[in-house]
Amino acid sequence: MKHLLSMKDLQKTDIQTILNRALEFQQLASADLTKQYTVANLFFEPSTRTKMSFEMAERKLGLNVLSFEAGTSSTLKGETLYDTVKTLEAIGVDAVVIRHEQDGFYEELLAGVNVAIINGGDGSGQHPTQCLLDLYTIQQEFGKFEGLQIAIVGDIAHSRVAKSNAEALTRLGAHVTFLCPPEWQGDYEAVNTWDDLLPTADVIMLLRVQHERHDSTTHFTKESYHETYGLTKQRYEELKPTAIIMHPAPVNRDVEISDELVESEKSRIFKQMHNGVFVRMAILESVLKGRS
Amino acid sequence: MKHLLSMKDLQKTDIQTILNRALEFQQLASADLTKQYTVANLFFEPSTRTKMSFEMAERKLGLNVLSFEAGTSSTLKGETLYDTVKTLEAIGVDAVVIRHEQDGFYEELLAGVNVAIINGGDGSGQHPTQCLLDLYTIQQEFGKFEGLQIAIVGDIAHSRVAKSNAEALTRLGAHVTFLCPPEWQGDYEAVNTWDDLLPTADVIMLLRVQHERHDSTTHFTKESYHETYGLTKQRYEELKPTAIIMHPAPVNRDVEISDELVESEKSRIFKQMHNGVFVRMAILESVLKGRS
Amino acid sequence: MKHLLSMKDLQKTDIQTILNRALEFQQLASADLTKQYTVANLFFEPSTRTKMSFEMAERKLGLNVLSFEAGTSSTLKGETLYDTVKTLEAIGVDAVVIRHEQDGFYEELLAGVNVAIINGGDGSGQHPTQCLLDLYTIQQEFGKFEGLQIAIVGDIAHSRVAKSNAEALTRLGAHVTFLCPPEWQGDYEAVNTWDDLLPTADVIMLLRVQHERHDSTTHFTKESYHETYGLTKQRYEELKPTAIIMHPAPVNRDVEISDELVESEKSRIFKQMHNGVFVRMAILESVLKGRS
Repeated sequence: MKHLLSMKDLQKTDIQTILNRALEFQQLASADLTKQYTVANLFFEPSTRTKMSFEMAERKLGLNVLSFEAGTSSTLKGETLYDTVKTLEAIGVDAVVIRHEQDGFYEELLAGVNVAIINGGDGSGQHPTQCLLDLYTIQQEFGKFEGLQIAIVGDIAHSRVAKSNAEALTRLGAHVTFLCPPEWQGDYEAVNTWDDLLPTADVIMLLRVQHERHDSTTHFTKESYHETYGLTKQRYEELKPTAIIMHPAPVNRDVEISDELVESEKSRIFKQMHNGVFVRMAILESVLKGRS
Repeated sequence: MKHLLSMKDLQKTDIQTILNRALEFQQLASADLTKQYTVANLFFEPSTRTKMSFEMAERKLGLNVLSFEAGTSSTLKGETLYDTVKTLEAIGVDAVVIRHEQDGFYEELLAGVNVAIINGGDGSGQHPTQCLLDLYTIQQEFGKFEGLQIAIVGDIAHSRVAKSNAEALTRLGAHVTFLCPPEWQGDYEAVNTWDDLLPTADVIMLLRVQHERHDSTTHFTKESYHETYGLTKQRYEELKPTAIIMHPAPVNRDVEISDELVESEKSRIFKQMHNGVFVRMAILESVLKGRS
Repeated sequence: MKHLLSMKDLQKTDIQTILNRALEFQQLASADLTKQYTVANLFFEPSTRTKMSFEMAERKLGLNVLSFEAGTSSTLKGETLYDTVKTLEAIGVDAVVIRHEQDGFYEELLAGVNVAIINGGDGSGQHPTQCLLDLYTIQQEFGKFEGLQIAIVGDIAHSRVAKSNAEALTRLGAHVTFLCPPEWQGDYEAVNTWDDLLPTADVIMLLRVQHERHDSTTHFTKESYHETYGLTKQRYEELKPTAIIMHPAPVNRDVEISDELVESEKSRIFKQMHNGVFVRMAILESVLKGRS
């Protein structure tokens, strides 16, 4: 694998290769890398989980990690992303992880740069490493994707997680259903109420209400969103015994999910984060091996 | 030791154990840790000394240090401290060092998180690692605490250093006296003038005037504070030959202490910082060993 | 070498020693250091290239790198640069790389501090490590300095690169010519047009238009600057076959240089960045060895 930009670039066998390697890393396999590689994490949007998870994965692989800080870089002097990445390439960086507010930021990089690019989230586009860790978590739980009922709930139109996951899960044989406010539906077809989902769902994937991407026209209060689209204690009780709850986090407690359910028995929210490190180790190893 | 939150949690023997181990580290002892631990330093308030000192201690212990930056983290998206720490726990962090503007920030963490917490300063609460490095510095100088005359001078009410130190030193047998402007006296009993301290003090602990925690009602100018409560050259001359001067820094030169005295013969201000690394090594090693 | 503050401090033989050692590092030589040294990079102005290049050099030398962040340090509480550097010294830092907006920031440090100081750019003063990597790049290309025709084009008055380079190159036997808008000429004598340079120049050193250091009185538009002082495709065609183009970057594309020329055959812009790592390894090793 040369880059990881979008789930669309991955064949089913590519996905399975990554998930298998992640499992080996979870079982304490060592990195299969023959030289000292250097990576830089370029986060132009706030992040705790993804950034820290990548950094942990990089350290576990024994990589050299440069501490790029967007807020004190020459992007303040107007330097383009292309020139920033070319600079890092020139000083010897092998791979960059980039989170950027622009959809498809990587398009302008592909022709000219010679470093491996991992998409850490592009605007309202894709978030393939989150998708892969979600797949890993589902496979860990159910041992398969074929025939699973997956419900994705929330702000589908703005969510890069929803897009990546819906596409990949469908391709892997799962059946994906959406529930969302009409104005956040985008091009997706959605069901109307939780009642259409609760009896059959194997996985409830909650999406974060992204206050920072919405304008003031949204007509929800926290309370009204929670009442209509949030996972309440009552809805939780109606889930199948084997169902699990996922959320890419950060969670808005008592909005997407009742505060008391975040660490409930069916919740895999912190498990997802835990799994993310192994999945990112597999991705980093793959793109670095793709360079030699 | 599971966490280090407040000096109140430490018995006299706990304190002595830490000071002894710090001395061993100063004498080039190696860390007694059997696995690769990871720590993250979460500083939600500005810091040079404490943050850099912890990072140096962590590197000297051979720990893996994640570069968490509060200003570019998901706390900007409203993520709570609890969820941030749970996230770090999920990705494999063993210990967190936290500085936070809220008094007792750690209370909400204790029930739910499974990482070791070291308090790097909580609001106007405690600053136990500063206290322990102050104790180390005093013991290095005098070989004991019993019977020492300690004068704490300045903004006692707002100072987490004052609180931690006064409590611990009294418990260790020292006699602590305070000198401060009446409005910064808090619940402490204070003497009126330097003349009450100068002839007998073994240790002068100056506190930083914390401009960032005061409102505009303070009636001091820099000059008037220095004249009344600052350590001037004249007062310095009246100190006992064996007396030493301490300050947690950053120093407001010519406010708490005359510029020319910061690096004077009796000053231990930079010595304190030097000692801090060994004391923090001892603390980190202790909480990490407390996890296995 | 104890510090690296200004090119003026370096004899011709000192320069050649650094360039030779940089070549050895490019040819994969190992660091000749006998203990574990610690460095901190203090960048009080935005930087990608210089900061990342130093960090890469430090890692390649096997140094311990502390992640000082000016924006979250105690300089926010008014701590002076002197006290910040003394603090780092106290906790065990051996060398600091400093970029600071104040010309000659290092003057106030020299008397009191005992760490090695490397000037990473001081206001409109000097930028000696950029100068040395430029010299390395020129020597790599031409094998000599004697008799070379060097044209420095752009904002000479505000450029720390121009000052360092003009002085050093002249001393090494090159002939330096300037081309610039009259208001940015400073104390230098300049030619009038590109036509005076194009037929003879071996090296075109373009300088960045530093929008952040100019007030609103500058009468150029991007287009008019490019037309009169920029390297256009037409001017490029008139260069000698062996001529090379240099720029300290970040480049303002289509201002100092036509966008399409940044990665042209004669451009050494990214080569300069690549070389910078080896030159900085040589400098760091030299000042660290100067401490024992």
